[in-house]
Amino acid sequence: MNKQKDKISTAVIRRLPRYLRALEDLENAGTERISSGELSDLIGYTASQIRQDLNHFGGFGQQGYGYNVGDLKTEIERILGMGRTYNMVIVGAGRLGQAINSFIASYKSDFKVVALFDINENVIGKVYSGVTVLDADSLEEYLKNNKVDIGVLTVTKEQAQTACNHLVAGGVAGIWNFAPIDLEGTEGTPVENVHLSDNLHSLVYYINHPEQN
Amino acid sequence: MNKQKDKISTAVIRRLPRYLRALEDLENAGTERISSGELSDLIGYTASQIRQDLNHFGGFGQQGYGYNVGDLKTEIERILGMGRTYNMVIVGAGRLGQAINSFIASYKSDFKVVALFDINENVIGKVYSGVTVLDADSLEEYLKNNKVDIGVLTVTKEQAQTACNHLVAGGVAGIWNFAPIDLEGTEGTPVENVHLSDNLHSLVYYINHPEQN
Repeated sequence: MNKQKDKISTAVIRRLPRYLRALEDLENAGTERISSGELSDLIGYTASQIRQDLNHFGGFGQQGYGYNVGDLKTEIERILGMGRTYNMVIVGAGRLGQAINSFIASYKSDFKVVALFDINENVIGKVYSGVTVLDADSLEEYLKNNKVDIGVLTVTKEQAQTACNHLVAGGVAGIWNFAPIDLEGTEGTPVENVHLSDNLHSLVYYINHPEQN
Repeated sequence: MNKQKDKISTAVIRRLPRYLRALEDLENAGTERISSGELSDLIGYTASQIRQDLNHFGGFGQQGYGYNVGDLKTEIERILGMGRTYNMVIVGAGRLGQAINSFIASYKSDFKVVALFDINENVIGKVYSGVTVLDADSLEEYLKNNKVDIGVLTVTKEQAQTACNHLVAGGVAGIWNFAPIDLEGTEGTPVENVHLSDNLHSLVYYINHPEQN
C-alpha cells in the first residue's frame, strides 16, 4: 500500500492518468528512457510541472538520465491502484451503456463488466460483448451476492439517484456517473462524474478564439 | 466578438463549462443572485479561485451583492461562443456514435447533428434520433456541400486519422475526438480529446485512497 505523508492535490491526481497513457504508448513503441523535456513535448505539460508532479511520489528521475519508462509506468499504476481486477456493473443498457460496456471489453483486463441492468423488457436478457442485461429490479439482490467494485450510471437524469442509492447501499467502492446530475448520499463512496457537455463547450471556446490555440 | 488582451490560461477555460452548468441549474431553480462563497459550496472550487476566474472577464461581481445569475450565465455563454447553431457530423455510427447523437439531440439547440457516417453497409441508411447514417465514402463530398462546424470521431483508433484528415480538409472548425489516438495534421483546427479511461483511472485512485475523498 502506498502511503503518502502529504495530501496530493486533485490537480496532480487528475494528471496521473495522462502520464500513464503516455508511458503505455512509449513502452509499446519500445522506448526505455525519457526526459521530462521529451515527456513535455508529448503531453503538453511543462517539463518543470512534470518533474514537480513526479517528485510527489518519490524521485524516480535521475539528473541527466531521465526516467525509466517501465519503472515509472509501474509506479504510477501502483499509485493509481492497478494490478487487480475491478468488477463493474452498468446500470442503463441503452446506447451509452452499451458503448461503455464495449469500451471496457476492449480495454485493460483490470476492468471487467460483470452485468448490465435495465428496466426495459425488450433489452433484459440480451447479451452485449458477452455480458447479459439483467432486470434492474434485481440490482439490490445481485449486489448482495456478488462482489462489485464499480457501479456505472448510464441511466437518465431522473433514474440516476435511485440507481445510485442501490449501488451505495449495495456496497460498491466507487461510482462512475454519466447522468447529468449531482448525486446525493454518496459520502464515503467516490463518484467520478463525466460531463460530455463540458468538453463540447471547451471546444466551442477554442473554435471562437483561434488565437488561443 | 470578445477580445481579451491577455491570454487566458487553459485551466480557466476548462472551468468555464462547470460555471455554466452551475448557473444553468441556479437559473432553473429560480435563483437570481449568488455569492462566490455559495458558488464555492456548489462547485467545489474555492471562493477566491472563483472570484479570480470571473475577474478575467471583467468584474461582474459586486462586493456584498454577489453575482447576478442570469447576467453571469449570459456573459459566460458569450465568452464560450454560444448563441448560434453548431452543425455537427459524427463519423462512426456504432454504439458510441449513436450515444453521442442521442445526447446531442436531447441537449441544447445550439448543437445539431446533421449527419452520421459509417462504413458498415448494414448501418448506412438507418435513422437515429432523426439523423440519417450516410456512407463514409461520401464524407468529403458532403463537407464540400454543407457547412459543418464540428466533426465528431467515434471510429476505431485505426480509422480515426483518415477520418480526421477528411474533416480537416473539409474545413470543419473543430474536432471532438473519442478515439484513443493523438491526431496529427490538425494545426489550426482545435481538437478536444475525450479519454474515458482517464476518468476511470482517477476513480480507481480515489477508491484506493479513501483518505483523499
